[in-house]
Amino acid sequence: MRLRNIPGSREAIAASEYVIHEDVMREKRGRWNEVFENDHPLFLEVGMGKGRFITELAQQNPDRNYVGIEKYSSVLLRAVTKREELPQLHNLLFLRMDAEDLPEVFGKNEVSGIYLNFSDPWPKDRHAKRRLPSREFLTRYDKILIPGGKVEFKTDNRALFDFAIEQAGEAGWTIEACTYDLHRDDSMMEGNIMTEYEERFSAQGNSICKLVISHSRQMP
Amino acid sequence: MRLRNIPGSREAIAASEYVIHEDVMREKRGRWNEVFENDHPLFLEVGMGKGRFITELAQQNPDRNYVGIEKYSSVLLRAVTKREELPQLHNLLFLRMDAEDLPEVFGKNEVSGIYLNFSDPWPKDRHAKRRLPSREFLTRYDKILIPGGKVEFKTDNRALFDFAIEQAGEAGWTIEACTYDLHRDDSMMEGNIMTEYEERFSAQGNSICKLVISHSRQMP
Repeated sequence: MRLRNIPGSREAIAASEYVIHEDVMREKRGRWNEVFENDHPLFLEVGMGKGRFITELAQQNPDRNYVGIEKYSSVLLRAVTKREELPQLHNLLFLRMDAEDLPEVFGKNEVSGIYLNFSDPWPKDRHAKRRLPSREFLTRYDKILIPGGKVEFKTDNRALFDFAIEQAGEAGWTIEACTYDLHRDDSMMEGNIMTEYEERFSAQGNSICKLVISHSRQMP
Repeated sequence: MRLRNIPGSREAIAASEYVIHEDVMREKRGRWNEVFENDHPLFLEVGMGKGRFITELAQQNPDRNYVGIEKYSSVLLRAVTKREELPQLHNLLFLRMDAEDLPEVFGKNEVSGIYLNFSDPWPKDRHAKRRLPSREFLTRYDKILIPGGKVEFKTDNRALFDFAIEQAGEAGWTIEACTYDLHRDDSMMEGNIMTEYEERFSAQGNSICKLVISHSRQMP
C-alpha cells in the first residue's frame, strides 16, 4: 500500500458515522452486538486497505456483521468514502486502530472469523512480530475468536505464506484448507472475493496462496 | 532410490528372522505387541530405503518398537544386512509390503507415530495418489494411528512438501511443527537423525523441509 498523507483525512474519518471513534471502541468490547443492534456473527478484516473486499463481503452476507480495521487514516479514508455511498448497508463498520490492540477492543468469543489479505510482509527478521500471521498475532486472534473460528489468509508473497504456515504450526492451529495457486483451485475459489492486490498480482501471472486455519482450544 | 534387481534378494529377505513374512504379517494385525513381546509404543517408517534412519532411532529408543516398511526387496536387503549385524537390538523389524496395505497389517490405534523421509515425489499429477503424504495415504495412517499420533515428514522436494501441506489441510490435520529449513531451526533439529538423502542433499546446499502433523479424531 502506497501511503500518502492526505491532509484532512483524520478529520474526515472522525466525522464519518461508519468509523467508531478510538475513545469509544474500547467501551464496546464484548458488546459489539449492541452497536450493530442484532446478534449476527461478527467478522473482521485486519489491514483492510481500501476496503473493497470487506465491503463486497458485507453486501453479500447481510446476516453477518463486519468490522474493517486499518491503521492508516489516508488508506481508511478511501474505504470510508466508498462506504458513504452505501447508506443502505447496515452491517459494516470501520476502526482506525493498531491490530495489536485487538484484544482490548473485542472480547473473548466475540469474533467468528478473521480475514487477512495481502498483509505487509515486513521482510526483515527483526520485524517478524509485526507480520499479521505471526505467532504473536495468532495469540491475539485466539483471544477474541470463538472456538473453531477461522483465520483466512491470502497473499502472493511466498516467503510470508511459508512463515504463516510455520507460525500456525508453532501455535498448534489446524489447517482447514491450503492452496499455493488459489485461482486454479476450484473448491477454494468458490465464493472468492478478489482484493485490489489480488486482481493486479494475478493479472501479472503471480499465483495467489490461501491458507485457512482454526484453533480449537478444547484440544489437548 | 536407484533400484537394481539384486539376484537372490527375495530369498535372503525371506531367510532373515527380522523380516516378517507376507503371509504372517496380516495375522499380526492388532497383536504386534505379541511379536515384540512387550507393550511398548510402536512406530513405523514407511519407505525406509536402506534403513539407516529407523535403525538409529531404534538404537536410541530401546523403550519403543519400530517397524520399517519397504516395497523393494533389493533396497530392503541393505537394511536387513545391516540389521543382521545388530542381534542385540530387540525393537526393530522389517516388512516388505506396499504401504497401501497398512490398514490390513496394523489395527486401529496400534501405531503411535509414522515417519516419512524423502518419499518418492511421483511428479505426474495422475500419480498424486501414490505420494506418501497424499490425502489417500493420510486416511490410511489415520486408521492405524492412536488419537493425536503424529506423522513426521522430511523432504528436500519443495513441490512435494507444498503438496503435503495442502493435503493435510484438506484432511483436517493439525500442524504440530513446520520448517522450510530444518538445519537452521534449532528447536526442530533437536534429536534429528539424518537420513542418507538428507546428508547428501543438505551437503549440496539444499534446504530440508520438515512437517509434523497430527489428527485428533475427537475434533468436530
